[in-house]
Amino acid sequence: MEWKETLSRYIDLTNEALSTYTDIENGENQQVINAMQYSLFAGGKRLRPVLTLAAAEMLGGSAKMALPYACALEMIHTYSLIHDDLPAMDDDDFRRGKPTNHIVYGDGMAILAGDGLLNLAYEIMLDDATKQPNPKPCLKAAHTIAVAAGIHGMIGGQSADLMNEGQSKQEEPSADTLAYIHEHKTGALLAAALTAGAYVAGATEKEAEAMKSAGFALGLAFQIQDDLLDLEGDAEEMGKPVGSDLKNEKMTYPAIYGVEASHEKVRALTDGALGIFEGFGSSSAFLQSLATYLISRRS
Amino acid sequence: MEWKETLSRYIDLTNEALSTYTDIENGENQQVINAMQYSLFAGGKRLRPVLTLAAAEMLGGSAKMALPYACALEMIHTYSLIHDDLPAMDDDDFRRGKPTNHIVYGDGMAILAGDGLLNLAYEIMLDDATKQPNPKPCLKAAHTIAVAAGIHGMIGGQSADLMNEGQSKQEEPSADTLAYIHEHKTGALLAAALTAGAYVAGATEKEAEAMKSAGFALGLAFQIQDDLLDLEGDAEEMGKPVGSDLKNEKMTYPAIYGVEASHEKVRALTDGALGIFEGFGSSSAFLQSLATYLISRRS
Repeated sequence: MEWKETLSRYIDLTNEALSTYTDIENGENQQVINAMQYSLFAGGKRLRPVLTLAAAEMLGGSAKMALPYACALEMIHTYSLIHDDLPAMDDDDFRRGKPTNHIVYGDGMAILAGDGLLNLAYEIMLDDATKQPNPKPCLKAAHTIAVAAGIHGMIGGQSADLMNEGQSKQEEPSADTLAYIHEHKTGALLAAALTAGAYVAGATEKEAEAMKSAGFALGLAFQIQDDLLDLEGDAEEMGKPVGSDLKNEKMTYPAIYGVEASHEKVRALTDGALGIFEGFGSSSAFLQSLATYLISRRS
Repeated sequence: MEWKETLSRYIDLTNEALSTYTDIENGENQQVINAMQYSLFAGGKRLRPVLTLAAAEMLGGSAKMALPYACALEMIHTYSLIHDDLPAMDDDDFRRGKPTNHIVYGDGMAILAGDGLLNLAYEIMLDDATKQPNPKPCLKAAHTIAVAAGIHGMIGGQSADLMNEGQSKQEEPSADTLAYIHEHKTGALLAAALTAGAYVAGATEKEAEAMKSAGFALGLAFQIQDDLLDLEGDAEEMGKPVGSDLKNEKMTYPAIYGVEASHEKVRALTDGALGIFEGFGSSSAFLQSLATYLISRRS
């Protein structure tokens, strides 16, 4: 299981860097830093940073050069969860078995903690890019992440999600809308994780495009798997209540296409991503193992 | 009054560019774009973009090259107002005479609209920097803005403000805390506006530092003037209820130091900024006129 050692190395690198990035000041702004650290170290799987570091190494770069972009992605992912959990959005009190940010710090501070993480992601990337003799590859990585996180990406997906919640009783959920939400809310950032890692390592546009396709396929597979786990999973293993999508009348892939077709779709999408990784040769062994593992996860 | 024509030119340039930047798509993400546009075009004075464009021209650059950074600053300022107005923060129903974002679009969409504007600011700057043959000056501008907007700047100030609200009855407001809030919540972004414009135009570090000092002085003067207008101003001219700081038990400069000393401080700070601008010679005429005008404003 050599790939699991690599996984641990990527996760350790990420956690160390995230600690360093948020080990700052101790003054009037202490509370927002506490709130940011709370969610940043609340048990996230570090999937996005792992993808970034792995893509960089696959393309011949180092994990170290990709770390600022890997950490930026984790900060952006974490901020989106903090804001999503707010009473004004999904109103979730628990995530990964722990009270959500606003339960601990209050709604106002949770909003600021999310804002702080989003902004810090860009501070880190711009600080790194400014120090490069040739900043172009890093700028491409940062720009890719910015587009994926914004209204053409994740925030666009969150907006569509918010507009469509609770509508399933009145009208059939549209398959197009569901596809838009999945592709943008989850897929865009996962695709950016692979693409940014590739760019930092000096990937060509063609290589970056291939990584983007693999990322969107994995992202959709990951999201459908999440929906299936919400239906079929074990609350204790998941660290959160299951069945919340049904309760919230959320449109999900299984709700529209059925459970069996959803499992089938996860397999087909994963095969697509595996095919792309194989095209990069033996240096893609880790990403192939990771993609295969993601299908079988229980939480 | 030639300087007022220049002011109009800067404001028109900013408004045109902001329209172009947000004239995008018409799909599943339409609602968050509507909400972003609503607050972006709700009567802002465009002070930050004006400072950026003026600083760039003063240093021999063009307003056009500074526009992405000017618009990014206005987006960051606008997002901070949207989030500040939320029930979980200041709970304000009106701003500049119009219903606040969450009153029109709901709390959840207002949170996303703020997130969307913050992220779009970085998309725009990174897009511009990526296109430059030599991206270093633009990267310095973007990095300066990012640091000023984050936990070491504006968000740090918002966090301190949120932690200290409603405490004035229990304990004396600390002058240090008030200074921190003013310097970070308002000063940092105004200083970044002047500094970023200078960087884009190729300023030296020494010139950038001077502009930063002028920006902090103007920022503090502007904030104290705001506090004074909240006490002494006319609700109709202001476009919002006056006296809200007293109602919210907010620490303000006049509350701690008194009205007369506050007016005196505004004058002294403005003189400091004027001295710095004068050091740049005749090309600083516009910024000198603007600084003098800001003292006498009624809203």
